[in-house]
Amino acid sequence: MKKLSFLLLACSFFTLSAQQIQSPSKEIQVEFSLSPEGEPIYQVNYKGKEVIKASKLGVSLKEDTSLTNGFSLVNKEETSVDETWDPVLGEQSTIRNRYNQVSFHLLQKEINRKLDIVFKVYDEGVAFRYEFPKEEAVRYFIVSDENTEFNLTGDHKTFWIPGDYDSQEYVYSETKLSEIDNSKLDSNNGIALKSIESNYRVQSPLMMKSADGLYINIFEAAVVNYPVMHLNVNIENFQLSSHLVPNAIGDKAYLRTPSVTPWRTIMVSDDARDIVSSKMILNLNEPNKIDDTSWIKPMKYIGIWWEMHVGKSTWDFAGSQNAQNAASKDLIPSGKHGATTENTKSYIDFAAKHGFDGVLVEGWNVGWEDWFGNWKEDVFDFTTPYPDFDIKEISEYAKSKGVKMIMHHETSGSVANYERHLDRAFDLMKKYDYPAVKSGYVGKIIPRGEYHDGQTMVNHFNFVAERAADYKIMVNSHESVRPTGYSRTYPNYIAAEAARGNEFNAWSSGNDPKHETILPFTRLLGGAMDYTPGIFEIKMDIYDPSKTEQVHTTLAKQLALYVTMYSPLQMAADLPENYERYLDAFQFIKDVPADWQESIYLEAEPGDYLTIARKDKNSESWFLGAITDENSRKTEIKLDFLSPGKKYKAIIYQDGKDADWKANPKSYSIKEQTVTSKSKLKISLAAGGGTAISIVPFN
Amino acid sequence: MKKLSFLLLACSFFTLSAQQIQSPSKEIQVEFSLSPEGEPIYQVNYKGKEVIKASKLGVSLKEDTSLTNGFSLVNKEETSVDETWDPVLGEQSTIRNRYNQVSFHLLQKEINRKLDIVFKVYDEGVAFRYEFPKEEAVRYFIVSDENTEFNLTGDHKTFWIPGDYDSQEYVYSETKLSEIDNSKLDSNNGIALKSIESNYRVQSPLMMKSADGLYINIFEAAVVNYPVMHLNVNIENFQLSSHLVPNAIGDKAYLRTPSVTPWRTIMVSDDARDIVSSKMILNLNEPNKIDDTSWIKPMKYIGIWWEMHVGKSTWDFAGSQNAQNAASKDLIPSGKHGATTENTKSYIDFAAKHGFDGVLVEGWNVGWEDWFGNWKEDVFDFTTPYPDFDIKEISEYAKSKGVKMIMHHETSGSVANYERHLDRAFDLMKKYDYPAVKSGYVGKIIPRGEYHDGQTMVNHFNFVAERAADYKIMVNSHESVRPTGYSRTYPNYIAAEAARGNEFNAWSSGNDPKHETILPFTRLLGGAMDYTPGIFEIKMDIYDPSKTEQVHTTLAKQLALYVTMYSPLQMAADLPENYERYLDAFQFIKDVPADWQESIYLEAEPGDYLTIARKDKNSESWFLGAITDENSRKTEIKLDFLSPGKKYKAIIYQDGKDADWKANPKSYSIKEQTVTSKSKLKISLAAGGGTAISIVPFN
Repeated sequence: MKKLSFLLLACSFFTLSAQQIQSPSKEIQVEFSLSPEGEPIYQVNYKGKEVIKASKLGVSLKEDTSLTNGFSLVNKEETSVDETWDPVLGEQSTIRNRYNQVSFHLLQKEINRKLDIVFKVYDEGVAFRYEFPKEEAVRYFIVSDENTEFNLTGDHKTFWIPGDYDSQEYVYSETKLSEIDNSKLDSNNGIALKSIESNYRVQSPLMMKSADGLYINIFEAAVVNYPVMHLNVNIENFQLSSHLVPNAIGDKAYLRTPSVTPWRTIMVSDDARDIVSSKMILNLNEPNKIDDTSWIKPMKYIGIWWEMHVGKSTWDFAGSQNAQNAASKDLIPSGKHGATTENTKSYIDFAAKHGFDGVLVEGWNVGWEDWFGNWKEDVFDFTTPYPDFDIKEISEYAKSKGVKMIMHHETSGSVANYERHLDRAFDLMKKYDYPAVKSGYVGKIIPRGEYHDGQTMVNHFNFVAERAADYKIMVNSHESVRPTGYSRTYPNYIAAEAARGNEFNAWSSGNDPKHETILPFTRLLGGAMDYTPGIFEIKMDIYDPSKTEQVHTTLAKQLALYVTMYSPLQMAADLPENYERYLDAFQFIKDVPADWQESIYLEAEPGDYLTIARKDKNSESWFLGAITDENSRKTEIKLDFLSPGKKYKAIIYQDGKDADWKANPKSYSIKEQTVTSKSKLKISLAAGGGTAISIVPFN
Repeated sequence: MKKLSFLLLACSFFTLSAQQIQSPSKEIQVEFSLSPEGEPIYQVNYKGKEVIKASKLGVSLKEDTSLTNGFSLVNKEETSVDETWDPVLGEQSTIRNRYNQVSFHLLQKEINRKLDIVFKVYDEGVAFRYEFPKEEAVRYFIVSDENTEFNLTGDHKTFWIPGDYDSQEYVYSETKLSEIDNSKLDSNNGIALKSIESNYRVQSPLMMKSADGLYINIFEAAVVNYPVMHLNVNIENFQLSSHLVPNAIGDKAYLRTPSVTPWRTIMVSDDARDIVSSKMILNLNEPNKIDDTSWIKPMKYIGIWWEMHVGKSTWDFAGSQNAQNAASKDLIPSGKHGATTENTKSYIDFAAKHGFDGVLVEGWNVGWEDWFGNWKEDVFDFTTPYPDFDIKEISEYAKSKGVKMIMHHETSGSVANYERHLDRAFDLMKKYDYPAVKSGYVGKIIPRGEYHDGQTMVNHFNFVAERAADYKIMVNSHESVRPTGYSRTYPNYIAAEAARGNEFNAWSSGNDPKHETILPFTRLLGGAMDYTPGIFEIKMDIYDPSKTEQVHTTLAKQLALYVTMYSPLQMAADLPENYERYLDAFQFIKDVPADWQESIYLEAEPGDYLTIARKDKNSESWFLGAITDENSRKTEIKLDFLSPGKKYKAIIYQDGKDADWKANPKSYSIKEQTVTSKSKLKISLAAGGGTAISIVPFN
């Protein structure tokens, strides 16, 4: 590690001329200045081109003078950092953290109020945040608004989802900035709870491409004790500005000195691969706070889950007609319950046979007869199994088979209720040796009036991760705040959903073929996603001839997703009996790891295609995934990342010649060939298709 | 038990003429009818006099047709009940529950929506509630208002406190109804958090006296999953109407079928003793839900508490200047910390020497350096002692002395934080054998926007009682919702503060001399109060000559409060060294029990005086307390409640001849005499004075 620090002390206050900060590569320049009114202003250039025009910075306070103007610069501190750290789980075994930092110490002289604005400039982008320094006494304050501007230079192509306080489970619209308008979205999209307050507000990460070929991404990192930032869009002049998700009474954040906001990030490059491969968001988070991480392990798992989505079984034991029977003993079984002891054992058998680490079981606990949509507080207790789910017997059976059980905690948004039961829920997990929990937050939040993405919920999700760490439990949250790199700090927070997952393909208009080519440029920048790939039976009419829903990919692309959608927790989401019919293709899912030594982004264009090669954390094997959008694609991949002189067996899982995501999605072929670092592979992707390749060295 | 039930079935809908319900004594008559618009209407008479004029009933819903009009009567059911039950702890060992009940089954025909209104008429008053019957499917609804009227017949004398959503810690104003005006209250009353939204709104229990000598009390019972009801006052026509405490977003209650509201109660008598002795509120609650109650025991206790109120020591270890040091190891001790191991041991010694059951220690846990007034979420963790409080050593020492420790959980209103830590906090208590907890809720509630008296908090307090019962822990909540008889259902919820306690005398304008003559007619109707009597050093100038604060009673009245302020948890609140100086008077506190076989209300006039005799639960001894307001008083008490033929030794603790609460509060005398059931005792109470008598049979 190399650190250099400078402190410029000023005898009197600066008359501030623009202050420069450069990336280590010197390709990115940030200028920071104060307006004549003492407003903080910044501007970003990349390779001499303007990326962010002069934009104001500031924070409005509810009960105090706002931190928006009247500032003088007291002094500044400069630091350069170049260090590495090893994530517990990740896309690569070592991450480099290299940036130039300048902290501007500002003062509102008249009221003697301090504010620091700190910039970190990386080779792939700029990060800055507000810091509220320690003062003589603790100062409490309420943020009523954050006034961060991102003034763009043109009408960029943009991949956006609406600024919804409660959901990110949208497909991405790909339009010009000027065409953003939430009122034009199709509301029949399978999302039950929507809280969109403005037609001209979107979520971040916001991926854009300028007319002159710059890829620009606006996001945030280390969202801790602060609400999620959405972006107001001025569709006429392309100015974006921060909008924080409010709480029940309209406040944004409750803070006290000393404290900091999340980092606001602007990534920019003329090569899309620099964005999609960036570890800047992780780097901007605090280092790991868990001493012993030996229990944090990647997991591939199957689960009693997709069968409920396709209507084969139910989460509930007794059907909603029994909703008024409070106690499980009064329930009349419907006969369709999925989470039975017998069914669970058969999943355990399948997991053991095929080498999966875990089995998730949803619908194991009482409450599902009346769980959704009514803002009900006391839905689940997280400790009482249905009468046909023998948790002790299942736990022992799983242990005898070398399989771990994955717990499921659906809160239905009743967070108050979940927090009340959390210790007991985790106690039960430890008693029965469940190393991981999948949590769910479907529905309106309780405490009532709170939103999924407000400060209260940010704190909740982070609290659960911390509390779970006490129990050595890994967490995979669904319908949660989207991650912003906090898995660096709490690496047991191994995955989240927090975007539109594969499940939407089962019962809604689904995810269009380009969806998985955008997520790595947006949602995945903050952390792993439990996307639940691996659906082989693409069309739902197999379950019911009247169904028209389908997965919007080919079967081969489902395989490729295990590489392109990074997660240390990877589900094989389809039914065991479906896998039994395609065991040759299933072999890739069995072989592909979930933790990596190295990842190489070979080709990337948001909304179009993505090709990634990754090296297994624990071997010399490589795995390659290539996906495309609705357009078929031919490309040639150089395998020069392989060790020179070494021979490998490549097994190529590819779309059949006649494959097409809609017309013929299950057409695939598998071929083997010997490859070296000098090999080039021509691959051909069907419309909505993909290729998955395992590259294993000959011993 | 005797039960009679009638069900009137109607082939068609009733044309409703007024329906009559009578008390068992026939002295109270209720009339129920529907207006031409189908509005439910009731009226109450007592001994032929109108008490409540025709008043409307109904409930407004947020998202559905309101349950206020358009009703037909489908049928009615009548029941008479005369049963008894034995409270675990109480003012008497057996309670009679005797009433006539009529349930009116109403229907809004057009939308097929049902509402039941159920009346129970007791000899001392009327109770009614709304019931939302089971329907085919569970129906969810949001109560936006309750429209219950109590239309009074005149400009009664009223004992009232303002309709504050967050506090009941007021002295009572004694005015006519027409003179109620919260804007005229002195706001310099020591209450830090006030949430008063209307000048013409008061809290219940509301005690009144009519010009023709009727005592009328409006209150509620069994507030469960519903907010507290305040009362809007029309000062011109003396109409009261329900106002429910809202939640963060203005809703009142979230309910689902089947469910019920709390009981609305109207007590009425021409003898004030019928009100103050009534067990109607307890009777209206559900029976005990705790199977094994052997661990629920009365407790007399001392504590490290008053010394902080008088400024001798502090709750915090390090002073607020250390507020920014998050971890206790960084704190610099101020030397004024009260909750030290050494000090606690000396309290344990005192408790053991004088036969007290328990010792409360406040300020034992880290967080007090920055705990109050800032809406801070993560104040306490309830498990980390200060470095100078050795919980293990103290626990062992207490055990060796036969004394129980009482835990303290100050939440500072951060209920979300408390619920997250509750299981761990209770685990710690069990580990160190603490049988009871005093909880505190000073400050604005978190979840932010919630009030102390809203549905969320009602549910919180009841949840804590239930959860504590799991651990066999007794609960004494301060700054909580005032009790409405729930201690019948969860008898481990042994006491609450929830009114202006003795502590206000230490550092504010205090409690006027009539205060303790009103509380039994108001706050105490719902359950025991931890008033913390027993202050012998009445004037605070003993601690600091510049102090002018004082307790507004004589010393003898402090003794009498152990009888007049019923609680199974009674503190001897003053400092051990103060008791050492008055050991003869202290003997009464040592002798008086906290659980009773029988209680006889001998004299009662709200705001003026109260005389009660109680028989020890476990012996033949009686204890008598008599108190007066700011006026001195002479009276004669017949001891005809004593067992005939038996001789008793009476020890009379009385005001000295020259005693006066202000001029000479510590003047007292003690005399002994032999008494029988034929004795009459002349007692003389100084201004702000009282008399306490122990009456112990000769063996």
